[in-house]
Order: sequence, then structure tokens, then C-alpha cells
Amino acid sequence: MKAAVYYGPNKVEIDDVAEPEPAPGTVKLKVGFNGICGTDLHEYYAGPIFVPTSPHPLTGQQLPLTIGHEFSGTITAVGDGVTGWAEGDRVAVEPIYKCGDCAPCRAGNYNVCQHIGFHGLMSDGGMAEYTVVPTSMLHKLPNSVSLELGALVEPMSVAYHAATLGDVSGGDTAMVFGAGPIGIGLWFALRGKGVDDIFVVEPSATRRAAIESLGATTLDPTAIDVPTFIADHTRGNGADAVFDAAGVTPAVTTALACVASRKPMVSVAIYEKPLETPLLNLVMNESRIQGSLCYTGSDFESVISLMADGAYDTTGWVATIPIDDVVDEGFEALHAGKKMKVLVDPNGES
Amino acid sequence: MKAAVYYGPNKVEIDDVAEPEPAPGTVKLKVGFNGICGTDLHEYYAGPIFVPTSPHPLTGQQLPLTIGHEFSGTITAVGDGVTGWAEGDRVAVEPIYKCGDCAPCRAGNYNVCQHIGFHGLMSDGGMAEYTVVPTSMLHKLPNSVSLELGALVEPMSVAYHAATLGDVSGGDTAMVFGAGPIGIGLWFALRGKGVDDIFVVEPSATRRAAIESLGATTLDPTAIDVPTFIADHTRGNGADAVFDAAGVTPAVTTALACVASRKPMVSVAIYEKPLETPLLNLVMNESRIQGSLCYTGSDFESVISLMADGAYDTTGWVATIPIDDVVDEGFEALHAGKKMKVLVDPNGES
Repeated sequence: MKAAVYYGPNKVEIDDVAEPEPAPGTVKLKVGFNGICGTDLHEYYAGPIFVPTSPHPLTGQQLPLTIGHEFSGTITAVGDGVTGWAEGDRVAVEPIYKCGDCAPCRAGNYNVCQHIGFHGLMSDGGMAEYTVVPTSMLHKLPNSVSLELGALVEPMSVAYHAATLGDVSGGDTAMVFGAGPIGIGLWFALRGKGVDDIFVVEPSATRRAAIESLGATTLDPTAIDVPTFIADHTRGNGADAVFDAAGVTPAVTTALACVASRKPMVSVAIYEKPLETPLLNLVMNESRIQGSLCYTGSDFESVISLMADGAYDTTGWVATIPIDDVVDEGFEALHAGKKMKVLVDPNGES
Repeated sequence: MKAAVYYGPNKVEIDDVAEPEPAPGTVKLKVGFNGICGTDLHEYYAGPIFVPTSPHPLTGQQLPLTIGHEFSGTITAVGDGVTGWAEGDRVAVEPIYKCGDCAPCRAGNYNVCQHIGFHGLMSDGGMAEYTVVPTSMLHKLPNSVSLELGALVEPMSVAYHAATLGDVSGGDTAMVFGAGPIGIGLWFALRGKGVDDIFVVEPSATRRAAIESLGATTLDPTAIDVPTFIADHTRGNGADAVFDAAGVTPAVTTALACVASRKPMVSVAIYEKPLETPLLNLVMNESRIQGSLCYTGSDFESVISLMADGAYDTTGWVATIPIDDVVDEGFEALHAGKKMKVLVDPNGES
């Protein structure tokens, strides 16, 4: 079968590899679509970062391996001892391997497991015709949710988890900094939680146009003074929750100038280095910066439920490409900013 | 009467001013002791910062005025309409003027009132023989709490409030960065909340010795790798709450490398400028930075109750001086690091 195999920096090849077969407790999936994540770009241009160079303690796998951790698929075979799942079931995959034994796992917060692994970074993943995963990773897709949307459940769950940490409720004013895929996911998640008064702050006209076409209200921080605008809009109180999905100093500085007293800025960005951060703002109004990482199963279920209700729309920001084009039309196009989100189609389904 | 009057940078004079008399709803206090705060030092060396140069909206006062907002006293006269307070009552003063009408005030968080003022920064304060305050600022001192301790209730409440935001409980491991007066107050507050496993991180040998003599366990960050020590001590989990009372980059960086997943670093420092902050640490373990400002009345009551139980000790870190020495033995000695905490005695009580 065809698989996108990661060998190290700047080297992903479409290889012909053996089809995996399900071990006990696992299922074999025909992959529907597999999204390319920012993490995959980091591995491609600056890796290996997460991909192990010696056998991973939870998976036993190491470089080279098939990448891809954002995917949907259809069960084609079930391993021994599997119950509750059958051939033909359509699923989204929650790709976390957890130890189950560390303090965060015991508290139910396995997204911050001290030994966390990911299917498609620490084991052969979803950018292939087939992959095999443990049933613990499966979330059933209703018929009304397409396999394209199914491949987006993972990144949309990252955003949904962050939205939950924002502790919002109906009537709140929220702000999203950065209109990339996670920023878009935050906008959908906040609306799904009943928040209508949302401002998306994004300096790129292209990205503003993309999220505006979905119905969002945007602010151009190069054209207006955002904190003054928000102060006027909220009668001086500030925003009830702000989300940093940009990861750069101007976004953090502006976000902390907008957040209301005792309210959060949720960080859901990969900060490449320490940023100059106005911590005095946090002190003066008892606001906080709350980190957000990944998701747990409840986030997957919430996103799938919202998708079944028609709350998500891929128009204008999601492109689908065949697996053979993964380097030029995937990694390179994303890196150059020519595309926002790319789903790889390994089986010619689209 | 004698009063320490602030005229502007580097100018505090002991003037002979008129004794204030109580207006309706206020009481006249004979001041017991008045502590010099870091805020007062900022006013003296770099002000006016908080002291208004035009009439303050809540107090109507402006420069020059009598400073001092950390004080205790004994009621010598009550204004018209005052009930529940009588001549001879010994009190600590919670020096906040609040608007009562902004969103934080309406939510009970008047410590982040959008129009906050302080008695002794925005009005004539406690560094004088007498001062007049509204009864809403009064907290009664039990007989077992001295007027010296009474003057420390305000800064100890700043620390107690921060300790509460650390969300600690018995059995937790806590860390305090910085062993100045607020760091010492955090140590007392955490112990008062039943936390015994506390590490105070402080590079100054003098300050380590001072807090060690109270019974604290310290770490010298110039001698050991603090995050490694804490990881070993907590079986890899990290500290349940860390407190930054230092306000400098090395403290913040080390604190965020020590905090456990989904736990807080509470900031109770005046950051003079934005600091390089490793926000990625927050994301990777979903920890948070929580700002802490001042106190409300419940913090005052908690501290007074702990003081009545003998939980606070001034040995080795608190010095008392007559009001005539406030510049040389107060501001200058604190600025030079020759003293840690100074209480001014305007009435020769000590």
C-alpha cells in the first residue's frame, strides 16, 4: 500500500509498504482523509522533534515511520477480542497513547500524560491507505458527518478543549487571536458553546477574508487600536475570554491588554521561544494565562456532535489532495502560506 | 501633629500639620505603627506614580499628602452616625477606596475596582500621629494581637490573598520565589492553610538566613538546579503551587519549570517591564499564571485570626523606627537592602 514515510528533515517519501493487520484489541482502518498538522510541518522542516530516534516506550517504534495523526477512516477488519466495533463503521481517531499511571492520567487529564505518545508521530500513522489503531482511540461518526469532517475532528478538538478552558458562557464577549485552522476551530467551538459576540484578530487580509466568509467578525490590528476598541465595546470591562492561537509577541501583548479582570487568556499555540510578556497586566486585574494542550475523549464527542448539527463548514479554508502530492501541494504549499489546511486522500475517495 | 508628607520624588518631609477630625461615618485614629511598603519606595524614588497630581475622583486629594497605607491604630474619636465602634478600639486598616459600581465591585472583587484608591496614596495616610478613615476600612484587633502586628496585617493580607489563589490544600508541595516581606507572608499564609512542604527559593544569603530563622526550608538557586530538585522531590509531578514574589526573569523561568500540570504560578510581584516568559511550559502541561492584587476584607480577617493564634513572628525581619528617622532609617535603609521591613512609630509607642 502507499504510505507517506518520514525519514527526517525534508524527507517524506511515498513508499510502497506492507498493509498492517490488526493485533488483538485493535482495528484495521481504510483511511478516509488525513490532515497535515503544524506539528507535521515542524517535523518536516526542523525535525525530528516528536518522532523518536530510538524505540518509544509506549509504541516501540522509531524513525522512519508513516506520519499522520489527524484522520478518519472506515473499519475493514477487527482484531481478536474486539467487541462493539464492526467492519463498515466510520470513525474519527483520537490518536493519544497514554501511560494510564502518572498523576495526570490518574486524574483523568491524559492529554498531559507524562509519557504521552501520538499515533502518527510515535507509531505508523494515518497518511497511508490503511492503519491499525487500538479501539480505545475510536470515536464513531454519524452518517451525517463526512469523512472529510471526520479528519478535522482532531484539530477542532484541540480548539474545543481550549474554548472550554476559557470558561465562557452565553452573553460573553470573546476574542480569538490568529485565524489559522485552530483560530477557525475556536470560532466554531465558541459559537457551539452559545457565544455570539466574538472578535477574531488577524493581520493577514487573506486569513481575515477566509474566516469572514464563514460569518466571523474580524479586527485588523494593523488598522485599529484593538484594546481601545474592546474597551469601548465592553463599557471598559474587557473581554470575558481571549484566546491566543497566534503565538507571537504582538498577539500576547494585545490579548493581555483586552482581557477583563479575573478572566483568562487561553494559550493554544506552540511558542517557539520565550516571549516578552506583560505579566504586570495579570497582576493589576487578577487575570490569568491558561495553557491548553490537545484534548480528551469528551472534546472529540462534543465536536462530532456539533458537526452532526451542521456547526462546522470547510468552505474556503480546507483543500484536499492525493497522497502523491503530499510534499509539493501539502508541506510546501502550507509552508508558503498558499493553503490554510490540507487533507491528504490516500485512497482516492474525494 | 507630625506627619511624613510626600511632595514628589526624593522629597518626604516631617511637617507639622493640623490634626484631622472625624467627618460623619469616619473615626479618628491615633496611629500605632505604619509600615513602609515597596509602593512607597517607588513613589519616593520614581514617583509620583499612584499619588495623584490632580484631585482624585474618589478622595478629592492630590500631591502633597501624608503617605502611609499599612497601619494600625487606636480609635480616639468617632464621627456622627458611627455605630459599632468606640474610643479605645484597636484596629488594623484596610486602606481601599472602592467605587462600588464597576463590574469587579459588583462581583465582590473590589480589589480590582476600576477606580480603586488607597488611603495613604490617594489621601492623607497613616504615617502621622493621627489619621481619619471611614469605618468601612476598620478591622478590630483582638487584645492578643499587638499594634506592631496590626500594622503588618495589610502586607500579610496581600500574601494571604495570593496564597488563596494558589488553590492549595494540606499535603501539597508549594514553592515561594523571593524571601522579601511578601515571600515571608506567603510562607506564613501557606502554613496557616495547612501546607507544610514549602520551599523558599532565594539567591540572597541574608534573606535565606532571615526566613530560615523563622523555620522555613530554603533553596539557593545559585547552588542547585531547582527544577531537578523539585522533580526528584515530587516523583516527577512538580509543585502543586508556585508563587512569584520576586518579579524577575530567572524566578519566573524557574517557577514555570517547577509547576505541576494544571497547577498555578501565582504572580504577586510588581513587574517593572515585560519579562521573557516561557509560555510553552504553560501549554505543555496546562499550567497557568494567575495574577494576584491586594486583598479583600476576608483576607484581613483570616490574617488577624492567624495572628491571634500566634502564627506570625516578626523576629529578624521587622525593624521599628521613630517618624523623624523615616528618610535615613526608612526609605534609604530599605533601598540599600540594609533592612527588610520597617515600621514607623509616629507616637513613640515602641
